[in-house]
This record gives sequence, structure tokens and C-alpha cells, in this order.
Amino acid sequence: MNQLANRVEQISPFQVMAILGRAKEIQAQGVDVIHLEVGEPDFVASEAVKKAGVGAIEQGLTGYTSATGLPQLKQKIARHYLNKYQIEVNPNRIIVTPGASGALQLLASLMVDAGKNVLMPDPCYPCNRHFLIQVGAKANLIATQPQHDFEIPIEDIKTHWNDQSAGLWLASPANPTGAVLSKNYLQAALDEVNQLGGHLMVDEIYQGLVYQGEDFTALSLSDDIFVINSFSKYFAMTGWRLGWVVVPEWAIEGATKLAQNFFISAPTVSQYAALDAFSDTSMQEFERRRGELDLRRQLLLTGLSEMGLTPAVPAQGAFYIYVDVSSITDNAMDWCLALLEAEGVALTPGADFGVEEAHKYVRFAYTCDLDRLKEALARIKRFMSIGSQ
Amino acid sequence: MNQLANRVEQISPFQVMAILGRAKEIQAQGVDVIHLEVGEPDFVASEAVKKAGVGAIEQGLTGYTSATGLPQLKQKIARHYLNKYQIEVNPNRIIVTPGASGALQLLASLMVDAGKNVLMPDPCYPCNRHFLIQVGAKANLIATQPQHDFEIPIEDIKTHWNDQSAGLWLASPANPTGAVLSKNYLQAALDEVNQLGGHLMVDEIYQGLVYQGEDFTALSLSDDIFVINSFSKYFAMTGWRLGWVVVPEWAIEGATKLAQNFFISAPTVSQYAALDAFSDTSMQEFERRRGELDLRRQLLLTGLSEMGLTPAVPAQGAFYIYVDVSSITDNAMDWCLALLEAEGVALTPGADFGVEEAHKYVRFAYTCDLDRLKEALARIKRFMSIGSQ
Repeated sequence: MNQLANRVEQISPFQVMAILGRAKEIQAQGVDVIHLEVGEPDFVASEAVKKAGVGAIEQGLTGYTSATGLPQLKQKIARHYLNKYQIEVNPNRIIVTPGASGALQLLASLMVDAGKNVLMPDPCYPCNRHFLIQVGAKANLIATQPQHDFEIPIEDIKTHWNDQSAGLWLASPANPTGAVLSKNYLQAALDEVNQLGGHLMVDEIYQGLVYQGEDFTALSLSDDIFVINSFSKYFAMTGWRLGWVVVPEWAIEGATKLAQNFFISAPTVSQYAALDAFSDTSMQEFERRRGELDLRRQLLLTGLSEMGLTPAVPAQGAFYIYVDVSSITDNAMDWCLALLEAEGVALTPGADFGVEEAHKYVRFAYTCDLDRLKEALARIKRFMSIGSQ
Repeated sequence: MNQLANRVEQISPFQVMAILGRAKEIQAQGVDVIHLEVGEPDFVASEAVKKAGVGAIEQGLTGYTSATGLPQLKQKIARHYLNKYQIEVNPNRIIVTPGASGALQLLASLMVDAGKNVLMPDPCYPCNRHFLIQVGAKANLIATQPQHDFEIPIEDIKTHWNDQSAGLWLASPANPTGAVLSKNYLQAALDEVNQLGGHLMVDEIYQGLVYQGEDFTALSLSDDIFVINSFSKYFAMTGWRLGWVVVPEWAIEGATKLAQNFFISAPTVSQYAALDAFSDTSMQEFERRRGELDLRRQLLLTGLSEMGLTPAVPAQGAFYIYVDVSSITDNAMDWCLALLEAEGVALTPGADFGVEEAHKYVRFAYTCDLDRLKEALARIKRFMSIGSQ
């Protein structure tokens, strides 16, 4: 019986895959494609991290680790919270996972019963919805507005909450909008969720990549929340597949059991490598890169604004700019495909991130250097001038 | 509300964790512990694999890969099936995953609806049950007998099948028994499941580690089954977290969508490293190790038999021997703890692998060298002679 489980149908494929596929085809034909669609830094791990990874392989430090991660890595992560954010975190609360993907999956299984729903903003990272579908739950999407910086209005939390709501999942800095939540906003959201009896998860995967506003951790507000993080973005270790989740004390035992069963352990070479991600030289390198990203961001913001493509929010963090293109097209996906065909510039259609208004938007990832971004802007300008003739 | 999801309660913690924890404590006190409890080879990756992993890091080949794995790795896996097992497999049917854990999880989500059950032998690898619980399904455990080599009698498949049954999951070589299924048996099981309208999954994670009987792949029987495999055991790459699942053509699209969402991709350094796992020199090294494992197996089988601890099955594969200790104890877990305290030998209690008769058994993993195994046998002999005084 060639019958997949029903949930597979409920998980939407990424529209950007069609962009990527076509981009590869035309690249193979010799077209120079500028990739602004990929949510992956163009940097690699720091030299110290690479060296530590090589050392682990050469020394044969490649067996399983504790299910929740190397104790020394958990200590380093805790010390990072202390050094950078002045927050004390018990290392036992840190569960190291195979990427933030593993952390999100673990959290869905740990906290959300089948039939329940979790409130989250529309737009947001699409896999959040799918991890809930995996466990028979679902996302309770709340449409957000650019004029409110794509934040869920606090009063909307209560109005969308129902008997089956288990919690609220937020992200800061956010994908795809680049928006950064304020401490005041997060505190108000936490108070509201506490009153409603649910849990709060804050996705801090892009932590550290903040150019405006305060770079803080939601852990500064409470020990009784879930925070997800990753070595992929600020630390530029995407393919190493390493993330973590900080859980409240009362959830450590359950989270450990799930980590044992679901993952056995996170990749060992990556864990040893990450031990050197917090060294002074590594952190200096990451801060230098943040400066570089900020220059790109400013270039892109200015260039797009000059074309009338004013970003929906200031794009204070991550490496994304989310732009409403509804004044120039009815369908952002078609526009992305046409831009790719005409000018070899690849973007991600907003529809991958939400349902309500997302089809009006495109996401720019500034993950290539300034010269390429200038070239991309010139090509988009040409494309738009031809389109408007 | 400090409330975990209900499924967390349904996932049993591993009893061996208590053994491991106590072993660490007494080791810290200076006791020499012989570890026969861990399902992990004492070998590391081959030199060629290590070198390829180092090369990937040094060249910065550490970004995300395609969600289903590097195309060249999928081709190498396909060629491995051809070279070693004379089976043609379309590389597109191979989904590379973060460990076989990822493969099992993907398969549960892909093929088993909530409320459904999957037939599997008792005893078996415990996480199988838990991956089903994650998606709201459950294991339909069928008690097996040592006199039938822990195989599910073919006629039992139909009698245990019900309206909610989705498939049959088998393993060969099997954990914890070391039993190897014959081609005839597998063909009969496949015919039965086909008739019942379900899917067959064969866990071949210990493939290649066969000392008696035929080392074959279930893919030789049909393209319409699911086969799970891993680089952890034969290739000794546990902490690299790399496995794969071979799916039928009609399931490729769904499996790809799930891989994109659940994992983004498998660890990249591990994937580049694994490209050299199939080279002649690597394969020669793995075959040499198989010879070494066979010597250990024979030593252990003989030594245990001399003490009256005759293994339940011939233990033809993997690196496990599963022994009924009910003639000397009412509770295998207590016996394991007492043995650890008295003699510093760590074993895994059978209760981690099943419910029916598993509490009568212990599992020996022959993952330390011959001298240590001889020492372990001497210690167990002493322990038993004192216990019987």
C-alpha cells in the first residue's frame, strides 16, 4: 500500500526549492546567479573552531557523548551567557542538540500534546509549524502587521488563546523579518502567557546578530521559559548541525530522556569544535563579521528604499530584510521567478513563512559581499525599470 | 504550568543509565570497570575517513548540504550496495540522515499515522517504540522465543495484525540478540505484510557485522520496502551521526520534504568524511576488524557457556550476546548492579529491550579487546561462584 501518513500532506514544501532548482539549472548553463535566498552565512567557522574540530578527529574523539552534550560545552555555553548577557544559567539546564532543528523538535515533543496548538506570529520560521504537525499538534498563527514591527499585539495573545493552547513561540531576531523584540515586549508576552497557564519559547537562533536595539536573552526575564539557540548563524557553523535549548529545572529530566531517545547525542566533532567558539579570538572574529553584515544591511536598505522597495520593518537583526512587493506584483513567487530568469538574482518568496499576507513579500538574505549586493541592486533596478515600461 | 506533554511519560528511561551512572561513580573512586554495556564499537573511523573529515573542515566544506545528502555520497552508498551485495539502488532513493536515529524518526513520521501501530519483535531496539510514541502511534510488540532465534513466527504476523496496524519493523543483525534473519524468513515476512497491506522496514544498522549466516540486504527482495542503515557500527562512526534510509520510489518526495523540515541536512563534515568509508583500504580495515570481533565473540560464547550462561541464540551478528540469567537471578537488573559493585563489570539489563521476558536477560557487548574480555569472564566466574556459595 503506497500510502504515506496523513501528516506528510500537511507539511508544505518550501517554495524556495523551486527557485533553488531553477537557479542551479541556469547556473549550469553559465548564468551568474546572485544568491540572496539562502538563510546561511557566507562565513565559515572561526579558525580556532576549525582547528578544534580537526584535533577531535585526529585524536579519535568521535564516539557518542552524553545525550545532553559534552559537560565542558554546556559549561562554556553557560559562561557565554554570563560573559555576554550577565545571566547565570545552570549548565544542567542546557541540552545540546543536532542543530536548532533538533532543539525545536525536542521542545514540540516535550511540551505539546497531540490536539494542542501553539501561538506564533505569521510570518515565522516555517519548520516550527511542521514540528508541531509531527506530534499531532498545530500552529495557531496570529497575523502580524508591518506597522507593529510584525509583533503579535499583546492583547491578541489572549484573544487567540483557547482550551487547546499550550504555549507561545516567538523569535528574536526573527526570520524572515529581521525584527528584534524589546525586553518590555517580551516581559509583557511572558506575563500574559503565565496568566494563561502556557509556556513561552523564545527562538534566539540569530542571537548576537543585532545591529540596532538591545541584544539580550529572554533568560534575563525568567528561568521558567524555553530558549532555543544555535551555532549556525552568529558562529557560522551551519553544516556542523549544533544547537541547544535551555529548559527550566523541572523539565531537565524529561528533556534528557527525549534527547537520549531521539538523538543518542549531537555530532561529537562539532561539539569539540564548538568548545573554541567562545574564545576571545573567535568572538572578535564574529564581532568583526557582525560589522560587515551591518554594512551590507545598510547598503541593501538604502538601495532598496531608493527603488521604492522600503523594507517593512527596520530589520534590526539576523541577516534578512523582508520587503512588501505588492505594489509591483500580485504574486511575489512569480516575481521572484521572473527576476531570477531575467537577472539571475535569487530571493525567497514570503509565502514560505506564513499564510495571511506572506504572498505579498519577499525575503532578502544579505549573505554575500558588498560588491555582489551592489550588483544585485543594479540588476533589480534594471528588472523593475523594464517591468514598468 | 510545569506540565510536560503526556507522551514524555510513555517513554521509558533506559535502565542502563543507572548502570552507567554507578560505573562512573566507582571509576572515579579508582575501580577498574570493564564496559560491556555500551552499544558502540571500540574502534574509530578509518584513517581515510578521518583524513577526509579533516580535509572538509580545512577547506571550509561545512555549509548545509542538500536535505537528502551530498549527491556523491548517495552515489557511493548505491555503489556499495552494488559492489558488496550485487543490488542496484537508485541513489535518489537514499536519504542521508543524522544517524540512523534520524532515519527511524523520519520513517515513523512518513509512514505511521497517529493512532496506528507497528508490529515489532520483543525484544528489540527500544527507541523504535519511542519514535512511534512521538507521532502518536505505538509499537505492537510480539513476544519472541529463544528457541525460534527470537524471530516472530510468520503466522504470528497475521494474528497480531489489526485494523490499526501500519507495518512490520524487523532488524538484522539484531540488537540486543545478535540474531541474523535468513533470506527465506524475510521473504516470508514480506509476503505476509504485503498481503496485509502494510509496509516492511528492515533495520540493517549492523549490516556487515555478520560472522555466521548470510550477509545480505533486504533490498535484494524488493524495491518496495524501507531499509535503514548507519555509518555508526560497521564503519565505526558513532559520534559522527550519519545514517540513511532507502525508500521506495513513490516515497522519495514525501521523505525529502520531511528531511528538509526535520533536519535541514545531515552533518556536513561527516558526509564528506564518509565519502572515503567505501575505499578499498577502508573496507579492508573494516573486514580486519570484523575478524577481531569474531574472535571476541567466540571467546565470550565459549567462556559464558563454560559457566552455564549459554547464549539464547548463536549470536551470528552485530556485537552482542544476549543471555538468559533467570537460572541464577530473579531480576537481571539487580544482578547487573551487584556484578558491577562486586567485580566492576558493566552489562545492559534486558529490560531495556522489551517487556515480556526481557527482565530475565542481560546483554553483553563485545566492544573491548580479548584481554579485557578474558578478565571480564574471570570476574563474572568469581562473582557467580561466590553468589552460589
